[in-house]
Amino acid sequence: MKLYSYYRSSASFRVRIALNLKGLPYEYLPVHLVRGGGEQMAPAYQAINPAGLVPALEDDGQLLSQSLAIIEYLEETHPSPALLPAKPADRAYVRAVALQVACEIHPLNNLRVLKYLKGTLGVSEEDKQAWYRHWVTSGFASLEKRLASDPHTGKLVYGDQPTIADLCLIPQVWNARRFDIALDAYPTIARIDEYAMTLEAFRKAEPAAQPDAE
Amino acid sequence: MKLYSYYRSSASFRVRIALNLKGLPYEYLPVHLVRGGGEQMAPAYQAINPAGLVPALEDDGQLLSQSLAIIEYLEETHPSPALLPAKPADRAYVRAVALQVACEIHPLNNLRVLKYLKGTLGVSEEDKQAWYRHWVTSGFASLEKRLASDPHTGKLVYGDQPTIADLCLIPQVWNARRFDIALDAYPTIARIDEYAMTLEAFRKAEPAAQPDAE
Repeated sequence: MKLYSYYRSSASFRVRIALNLKGLPYEYLPVHLVRGGGEQMAPAYQAINPAGLVPALEDDGQLLSQSLAIIEYLEETHPSPALLPAKPADRAYVRAVALQVACEIHPLNNLRVLKYLKGTLGVSEEDKQAWYRHWVTSGFASLEKRLASDPHTGKLVYGDQPTIADLCLIPQVWNARRFDIALDAYPTIARIDEYAMTLEAFRKAEPAAQPDAE
Repeated sequence: MKLYSYYRSSASFRVRIALNLKGLPYEYLPVHLVRGGGEQMAPAYQAINPAGLVPALEDDGQLLSQSLAIIEYLEETHPSPALLPAKPADRAYVRAVALQVACEIHPLNNLRVLKYLKGTLGVSEEDKQAWYRHWVTSGFASLEKRLASDPHTGKLVYGDQPTIADLCLIPQVWNARRFDIALDAYPTIARIDEYAMTLEAFRKAEPAAQPDAE
């Protein structure tokens, strides 16, 4: 398998964790999202993935895009260890936590969105940072309430074994730290993050551990 | 089953199509997202769904949230008719198209985001409309390129039978029309939408056909 990735892309980070947890070796192909206006927009990468986004996974001659679609694919083709529980209602719970990060927080703080705010709308650097913090803190507040009270919560989001919910949550926590957002108000999230980062699959997927880290 | 829904919420629209396609009867419980600052923030609804979002589906005493998690749950518990193809790579393709709408377009044009732009950042009505159009048109341009050239494309996104990709795409087209975005530049998307809206399951899920439509 080949993974088109950018070290700091949290959607790439999710897929790297999944590949590590399932013990699947892969070739790492860096796509620099900032240099020269973004290598993802260059013809070379557009020919591979016309959507111009990372991550993308090449497997068996097929190019797969969208991190959660890639992770579900890995789950179906390499079911062990499972990243989703067995019962439909439990699977729905884990997917909902993953989507709460992937649809409610992450898209608002993407590079292209921050660029539009600053470049097109002329928002100040301070207001841009406040925007970033707003969506992380309101999203984390809602998640914290859920995780603190839900009986499924263990050392990780769903019991003690990693699920796709952790794959989305941990990279988002990494982003929050990068933007100096304190986690004091989200003790359950902070505790889950601390435990996850003791696991090799998560540590090896961290931005700083990637070949293109700066 | 009980569906907490708002007629104009496109995430609710997705789940309504899924329920209709699978022939599952449900009780419609309206949650007005605008009236009185939004009924989804009121204690009565927060007690049901602390995330304060619609849709939410109650089934078998469980409350499920996040439209795509709900749809995957319906697919697992009521597999026929299938809303995903059989092969993992094809399933990944359909999920990727669905996520391209659900993660790249829709979250940026949510009510709460438009409110923040106008209320907190003081963006003009004109710039807010331009923001809305920007994410729809750039997202549709990318999707059009994909759908126009992909051999999977049929009368619908994947062949001629509805999949979760159509469940995400059609409500997004409805939103685009509501904001007077012309579809001329996206002939494949327009054609898929036209065909989908000849199907009863889609028509019955339309905002105008809901009991809380205004």
